[in-house]
Amino acid sequence: MRAAVFANGRFTVENMPAPTPGPGQILVRPLVCGICGSDLHTRHHAHHLAALLQRAGFKGFMSPDLPVVLGHEFCCEVLDHGPGCTRAVPKGNRVVGLPFLADPNGVVLLGYSNVYNGAFAEEMVLQESATVAVPDHVPTDVAALAEPLAVAVHAVGAASADKDCAFVVYGCGPVGLFVIARLRYLGLGPILAVDPDPARRNFAEHMGADVVTAPSAERVGGWWAERGAPLGVSDAAAARAAGLAGRRPIIFECVGKPGLLKSIAEEAPAGASMIVVGLCMNPDTIEPSYLIQKEIAMRFVFAYKPEEFVEATRMLAKDPDRVAPLVTGHETLDRVTEAFDALERGGSQAKVLIRPT
Amino acid sequence: MRAAVFANGRFTVENMPAPTPGPGQILVRPLVCGICGSDLHTRHHAHHLAALLQRAGFKGFMSPDLPVVLGHEFCCEVLDHGPGCTRAVPKGNRVVGLPFLADPNGVVLLGYSNVYNGAFAEEMVLQESATVAVPDHVPTDVAALAEPLAVAVHAVGAASADKDCAFVVYGCGPVGLFVIARLRYLGLGPILAVDPDPARRNFAEHMGADVVTAPSAERVGGWWAERGAPLGVSDAAAARAAGLAGRRPIIFECVGKPGLLKSIAEEAPAGASMIVVGLCMNPDTIEPSYLIQKEIAMRFVFAYKPEEFVEATRMLAKDPDRVAPLVTGHETLDRVTEAFDALERGGSQAKVLIRPT
Repeated sequence: MRAAVFANGRFTVENMPAPTPGPGQILVRPLVCGICGSDLHTRHHAHHLAALLQRAGFKGFMSPDLPVVLGHEFCCEVLDHGPGCTRAVPKGNRVVGLPFLADPNGVVLLGYSNVYNGAFAEEMVLQESATVAVPDHVPTDVAALAEPLAVAVHAVGAASADKDCAFVVYGCGPVGLFVIARLRYLGLGPILAVDPDPARRNFAEHMGADVVTAPSAERVGGWWAERGAPLGVSDAAAARAAGLAGRRPIIFECVGKPGLLKSIAEEAPAGASMIVVGLCMNPDTIEPSYLIQKEIAMRFVFAYKPEEFVEATRMLAKDPDRVAPLVTGHETLDRVTEAFDALERGGSQAKVLIRPT
Repeated sequence: MRAAVFANGRFTVENMPAPTPGPGQILVRPLVCGICGSDLHTRHHAHHLAALLQRAGFKGFMSPDLPVVLGHEFCCEVLDHGPGCTRAVPKGNRVVGLPFLADPNGVVLLGYSNVYNGAFAEEMVLQESATVAVPDHVPTDVAALAEPLAVAVHAVGAASADKDCAFVVYGCGPVGLFVIARLRYLGLGPILAVDPDPARRNFAEHMGADVVTAPSAERVGGWWAERGAPLGVSDAAAARAAGLAGRRPIIFECVGKPGLLKSIAEEAPAGASMIVVGLCMNPDTIEPSYLIQKEIAMRFVFAYKPEEFVEATRMLAKDPDRVAPLVTGHETLDRVTEAFDALERGGSQAKVLIRPT
């Protein structure tokens, strides 16, 4: 089978032996597979990422010195069932799945394994118990969004938000856009989306942001003030004392660049909760004393739980049109490099899907 | 009346006119008043603190260029009632109170005002509605602990802790010690207390810490492991998948020194909640990507709400002996400088109270 092999910082399409499904595993044909921000990181900072995960006690990540076939945001067709499978999803039907495989040596992260290939390939194996059938009415492209959407399901869940909250989403790349879509799906708002790129702000409006803006402390502060969530500690205390508490401020950081936590805190109302989803690979400087005065909370979140992945598939099944506009392009296996290049340039692309066959 | 006036970085006992209680205010005689960590900060970094509070939109803090009489952790005797008072607490009885005064120009922070003097003085005015009567059985020294205890009531409340949690408290100065006492009062534990100073670790044991240790990544990590809260992401995920979730990890940062947030995160189990109470006046460096992998939450907390102050007085009334050992010394107005010096040296002092008369 053909696969886009990443080695020494480059993608090359190679012929490699097709995998064989072991016990509890199914053989599948990836129909489409999205490119994730973590894939972009891996292209340039694989060693950094591997060292980080090792320090955090995350086992099952690849060695950055060995070749890897990336791809973990997949929608696949079932080709065959390994021994001991329930065959709940018959051959020829479509599945999505958590990119995890229980190997005798431990849990393998599919798409970041040197042993099992990811979905930028004509075939791969999945753990049957980690897959979810795709209903007929859900387009394949939309189904492939389950994995990144699960990240947003998790991030929004971590905010413990309700109808009394208001939301600012910094960064309208795929993560921020899925967060906006998820908030709207849950009936939550109002939402202000912040991004320097006009094309991304357009996407944010399509996903349901009430207001979009380029980064501007003045505009963000004004938006909060209109919602009764003042930036200053004394104003917040006075509002509380007068029983005038405004919307509870919740902020999603979906950018991941150094300096942003500090500037977001300055634009944040007193008492704001920040959910940090953007993966900033550099150390960052914060001002604890300032964060203390304003009683800011920063909750750093990562990935999702299995039930959150399942909830993402449910949301896609109930409302497949909501996030469909986020698929902005397709590329073949031979053009993985070009697809990565285009995403790194940013702008008018949201989710680009690779079609391996 | 005599007062310890702080100006140009020095305390001088001066004679100044006694204050007169305005509408809704009472005139009191401070019996004792504790020295707070914020007072120590003010002595050396008043301009820094004032600039910080201004940036955070905190009005009503003093000008650092003008003289001030510090002291906001007081227990006082009522001397007189201003116009329009309810006189709920008669003359000669004792009160504690929130160090806030509603002035026509806004809320004044007592102990950090250039207009109204704090409790390092023979007399002061309080807002009657912000005071709480001290029951006869509560010693004056213990009553004066209501204000710093309220900080711990607030910090522990922010943790939303329950019986399934385990706690590490970094820093066994007064704030950390009150946090330990508050956790124990609520029946919460187990508690590991971390401090380099043996005298402070002794205090932590008296307050109810189950185990105390000097800073040691190995000992802290081992303690968490024994409570089923592994440091590594994969181990945490495996434990969760096997239904073996251990104690929910809650960490109180009560030190406030640069570098500590980073090292605490490294010693923290995956999924830990950090409540940051220690006032670190310097910028600090964190590693967002590491915090994301381990899903650490950092909640920065400050001061308390009026109802938390009242709860602190209730706790002292129910169990005055619990925190009584934290009063380790008394000084007169003339020895405020020496008292500050001793606290800055750290060690065997916990709470030192000034007796202004």
